[in-house]
This record gives sequence, C-alpha cells and structure tokens, in this order.
Amino acid sequence: MSAMSASPVPTREPSVLPVPRDGIAGAAPYGAPQLPVAHALNVNENPYGPSEELTAAIGAAAAQAAAGLNRYPDREALDLRRELGEYLAEESGVPAPPAEAVWAANGSNEVMHQLMLAYGGPGRTALGFTPHYSMYPEYARDTYTAWVTAERGPAPDFALTAETVTAAIAEHRPSIVVLTSPNNPTGTALDLDVARAAARALEPARGLLVVDEAYGEFRRDGVPSALTLLAEHPNLVVARTMSKAFALAGARLGYLVADPAIVDTVRVVRLPYHLSAVTRAVARTALAHREELLGKVALLRTERDALAAHLAGRGHEVAPSDANFVLFRAFRDRDDVFQALLERDVLIRAVGPAGWLRVSVGTPEDNTAFRTALEEADPR
Amino acid sequence: MSAMSASPVPTREPSVLPVPRDGIAGAAPYGAPQLPVAHALNVNENPYGPSEELTAAIGAAAAQAAAGLNRYPDREALDLRRELGEYLAEESGVPAPPAEAVWAANGSNEVMHQLMLAYGGPGRTALGFTPHYSMYPEYARDTYTAWVTAERGPAPDFALTAETVTAAIAEHRPSIVVLTSPNNPTGTALDLDVARAAARALEPARGLLVVDEAYGEFRRDGVPSALTLLAEHPNLVVARTMSKAFALAGARLGYLVADPAIVDTVRVVRLPYHLSAVTRAVARTALAHREELLGKVALLRTERDALAAHLAGRGHEVAPSDANFVLFRAFRDRDDVFQALLERDVLIRAVGPAGWLRVSVGTPEDNTAFRTALEEADPR
Repeated sequence: MSAMSASPVPTREPSVLPVPRDGIAGAAPYGAPQLPVAHALNVNENPYGPSEELTAAIGAAAAQAAAGLNRYPDREALDLRRELGEYLAEESGVPAPPAEAVWAANGSNEVMHQLMLAYGGPGRTALGFTPHYSMYPEYARDTYTAWVTAERGPAPDFALTAETVTAAIAEHRPSIVVLTSPNNPTGTALDLDVARAAARALEPARGLLVVDEAYGEFRRDGVPSALTLLAEHPNLVVARTMSKAFALAGARLGYLVADPAIVDTVRVVRLPYHLSAVTRAVARTALAHREELLGKVALLRTERDALAAHLAGRGHEVAPSDANFVLFRAFRDRDDVFQALLERDVLIRAVGPAGWLRVSVGTPEDNTAFRTALEEADPR
Repeated sequence: MSAMSASPVPTREPSVLPVPRDGIAGAAPYGAPQLPVAHALNVNENPYGPSEELTAAIGAAAAQAAAGLNRYPDREALDLRRELGEYLAEESGVPAPPAEAVWAANGSNEVMHQLMLAYGGPGRTALGFTPHYSMYPEYARDTYTAWVTAERGPAPDFALTAETVTAAIAEHRPSIVVLTSPNNPTGTALDLDVARAAARALEPARGLLVVDEAYGEFRRDGVPSALTLLAEHPNLVVARTMSKAFALAGARLGYLVADPAIVDTVRVVRLPYHLSAVTRAVARTALAHREELLGKVALLRTERDALAAHLAGRGHEVAPSDANFVLFRAFRDRDDVFQALLERDVLIRAVGPAGWLRVSVGTPEDNTAFRTALEEADPR
C-alpha cells in the first residue's frame, strides 16, 4: 500500500488495528486469478455470452425494475422461485416444485453459506469428499462448522460409493453432508444409490444432505438428477446455479430445492432483501430466454467429450466428466504446465490431486487453442 | 401449506426434518410487512423513484453488463469502490478515501454481516444502544456473536453520552461497538465526541467501532460525519448505504470506509463474487447521476422538519430527527394507531420504545395523507 497522505485513512501498523476473530487473520481471500487472457478456461464459465436480443431484453427488464428501485425489493421473490421450479421440472422430469420449495440467493455460494448458517455452527460438523470444490471449507469456516472429509475413490474415476459415504457418516456424525454431482473438480457424476444411502444414514440424527448440482445440466444422457429423490428423502437439499449452463455467472443467481420447512429455516438466516430487484428481473428474463441460453449445453457436452478423448489420446489420465470441464493428469510438474499455458494465453486451473489440472470447456476455438498450447506446455 | 401431491416435495412432519442449529428453530424471518398501500411510510424508503432518463441509463448499463454475464464479475470492483470514495469526499468534506479503504456489498446489512463474521464470533460480544435498528441482534445471532445493549438517554432526545458508552464498554468488553448516526429508530445524530470516546475506549483491547451512517445524508446542517474521524482512529468503520438518500433500496448496495487492513480482513470472509456485475453497473450509474438522485434530500429534510413540528404541535412527544423519519409517541395504544392508519391506506412502523411509532418522510402528498389519517387514528 502506498502512502496516502491525502487520504482520510492513513496506513497503520497492524498492532493498532482491531483483532479479527480466530481462523482468518492473515488468510487470503478466496478466488482464482482474474487475468486478462484470450482463453479463460479456469473457472468453468460458459464461454457463450447472450445474444444481442437477450442483452437488450435484460437491459429492458433492468430498466423496468429501475423505475421502482427506491423501494426495497420483494423479500420473497415467489415469482422467480416458482419459475425456477418450472424450469427444473422441464430439465429433470420431476413434477414442478412449488415456489415454497425453492429458494434463491446471490449465487450458489450464498445458498451454501445460508445452509451452513442454518444447519451448521459451533459443535456441528459438515462432511465432504476429496477432491472437492475449494469453497466448501470456507463456508464451514465462516459459520464455525467443523469441516471434515473422506476420500473419493481412486483416480481416474474418483467414484463415491455408498460404503465410503455411510462409513464416513458413522465416523463423523455430521449435521451436514455435501455430495457434489457432477463433482468439482473431478467431473464425476453421483450414483443416486449413494445419495440414497447418505440420506438414510443421516435420517436417525436428522442431518442434512446437500447435493450440489451446480454443473447438473451438463450431465450425460441417462444420468438422473438428485431432484428425483426429493420425494423420498425429507433431509435432502438439491442446490443449483444459473452461473454455468445458463451462462449467467456475472448475475449471481443460485438456488435450491428442498422441503418447504427447510426453505423456511433458511429464510430465518437470510439477510432481508438479500436479492436485489434487478437480480430478480435479470434472472427471470434469463429463464424466459432459456432456449437460447441452454442452447449451447449440447455443444459444450460434445466439446467436453472430444476434449476428454483428445487428452486420453495423448496419454493423459483423464477423469470421466459429466461437467463442463475436464480433469487430467499432467505429464510434468503441473505448475510448470499451468505457467507454460498461461504464457500461451491459455488460463486453466491447478486444482485437485497433486499433478492434476482442470480445464474448462470453452468454445471450439478456445479448445483448439488449449490443445495447441498443451503440445508445447506439456509435451508427451 | 396446502397438500402438494403433484410436487416432488411432499409436506412432512417436523420430526423427520433436519434439525436447525440452536437459536433459529421456530424463529420468524426478519422483515416489516410488505403490503400494497397508497402511502408506504414504514421502511424509510426515499419516495422518489428515478427519472425516465436515469431509468433508461440504468437499463443501458445493465444491457452493457449483460453482454459479459457469462463471466464471473470482477471480485474487487475497485472502480465502484473508488467512485464511492469520491462521492463521500464531496458529501462529507474529507479527502477521498482510496478504493482500498472502501468496501461494497449487497446492502449495508451484508456489510454488517461481513463485519460481524470477521470481528465477532463465539466468545465475542457486540454492543449496541437501545433503541436500535432491529437487525443488529440478527447479525449477531447469525455470527454467534453475543449481542449486549445499554440504554440511550431518556426520551425524547435519546441522546448518547461518552459516559454511557465508555461505561458500557468497560462493563461488557465488546469486540465490536455499533453506534448509529442518525440512529434508527430515533433519528438522533451522534455527537462525535461520543464516537471518539468509544474509539479510544476500544483501543487497548483493539476492538472495532462501527458507526452506521445509513441515514447520514439526511443529517442537519452543521452535523459532521464520523468519516472525519477516520484519520484519528484506526479501529473505526463508517458504514453507508445507497438505499436511502440515493433512493436505491431495490438495488442493494451498502458500503463502508475503514483502514485498508480492515477492508482486507472483510475480504477474507466475503463470498467470492458476492457483488454481481449488474449491481456494480447499476450502482456506478446511480453515482454518475447523483445530482438527480440526491436532489430530493433537501426537500425530504424540509418535509421531515415540518412533520416533526406538526407532530409536536399536536402535542406528541417527538424525537429530534436527523434522518428521513420521525419517531413520536402516540396518544393511545400504538398498535391501535398503527392499525387505524393502515385502514386509511397509510403504513407506518410500530417500533422503538413502548408507545412510540416511527413514520418515514414521504412525498408532500404522503405526508399530508399521514397527517390527515392521524387526526382520526390518534385523536388528540
């Protein structure tokens, strides 16, 4: 920090500053690097922006919302929640959950934070399975929930079995279990029998099972959603997001489906007016244009399969993926490969087990650029 | 809840549902009633919506942001934070704080939640002074921070003295003290000597002083902002919002100014990408149009003073107000008065000490409707 003599806030010695709570002093804020590169394949974004028509529709919806921006937003946003339910019915073949069984927040990370606020806390434990999404331990830390893990199966499948999950539940007695399907960073879809086993194992102590389906729309044909289990299991929450398949990462809209009583509990810990009137209008517009937005999912799945096949063809170990990214094992030091790709304007992610790298599925041009750069960055 | 046989989420007995953490089971979600009335004077909104020109500008900004919505938003939003600092320099006569000393989130309630996440927690205490804003105990509850209070001075002034504040700090040894200026629901401005005394009393144990200036722009001439104390006190945070003077409650944009090290600590507990690209664009557009948006502040202050004088003229006890609302003591049961006003299409708030009511300053038409309705609802 440079000297700020003209600032009302001079630079000070840490010893005179307020003391943060335990566990965060000196911690770095979470986040992958945000670098200006030609091929950003590091945070599993959908590479396809909205059409001009949709951009205009979003602008019109925001302008309409703007006329009433002096007023607080509708706290409940039941219209958006109902429409999200209707979309899920279409997507997953389940009856449409009513608005009261759906909850929306600023990104699925706010949804997860709210779930941990409501069902975690001091003396409680949340259980995940490694390798897992990097934010889970932060949701737990922020809510004073102990984060414990067990391991997924061996590479390259990283499969989760009912035995692994029920044994870990028996050992840790968690209040919350997080299963991710498809899993980030491995891309692995969840066998629903594993989800069933987890839900049943949690029932006696009335623990919560969260199935995080942030990448759900990219799953392969014949892979069911955990939404189909909601009727069976009162302790199941399925989390979704508009960031990925809907290509709406910048709009921050995550949601969940669960028993209305679980939604009501989340409502107690949500900040009032957490969802802006504009966010709600943008999300509803995107839902109304879902044919366009989801129109690239099929292409991204095809490109993903081609990318995975290409990597396997080069001799890499590759995790089978139901998501819009592929995890593969580098031939040489992964940080060197990461850096060499970056020098070639391709940004991917060094995440997952040691030696592995994750690359998002981009446009065909992005994917070609990645393949070309990889030839030099990680020669066979 | 009606039966939902067509839903994937049937209604269940509470006994089979997951157990929420302590302190929230059965709690009601926070929030004033959102009722369709002609005169909504209950949540201290600015009654003036944006002009058609500004509405169009917000729509255009949202459309521009929409073109990149498939990407995650810039996590830091330094442009917005710098512009907020520039605005505060204008507003309060302090040198502009740099972007690194400013932090923005989804409403000042997310700002407060983040501050309590970072500086509160189990074993820590936050101290406020009654009557105070109803959400403070919820921020504390959600972050496992003990919420303790001392009393402000007697009605109708509800003044806070250095003695009261330092005695309460000595008694409770809080990690966080919240002083609100002007105070909600009383409207009382804070004597900055009280803020100085609080900051100094917190220094030995390195506690945090938060001065919540959500209604700061409505303060009377000659009343300084706590922003002027930032250079003196390393443990001071001043929180602001665009919800009130900026007439942007629906857009959810709160912010704070503090030592950059405090901002960095908040960054550790913020959710990544907490602020959407659209929210940032809307807020920046509103800042660029601040002449229009803040153009009604003078009128609202004049109307406030007239409303307070009118109420005093009727014989009510009235708290002197530096905000866009007036707290007054009803002649009869306040809930009866509230209900009688509501029957006349005027919604106010039964909040504050027993017997008192809070009315927001609306348009001259709103204020006239309130006065007329009050003649019948609370006859002298």
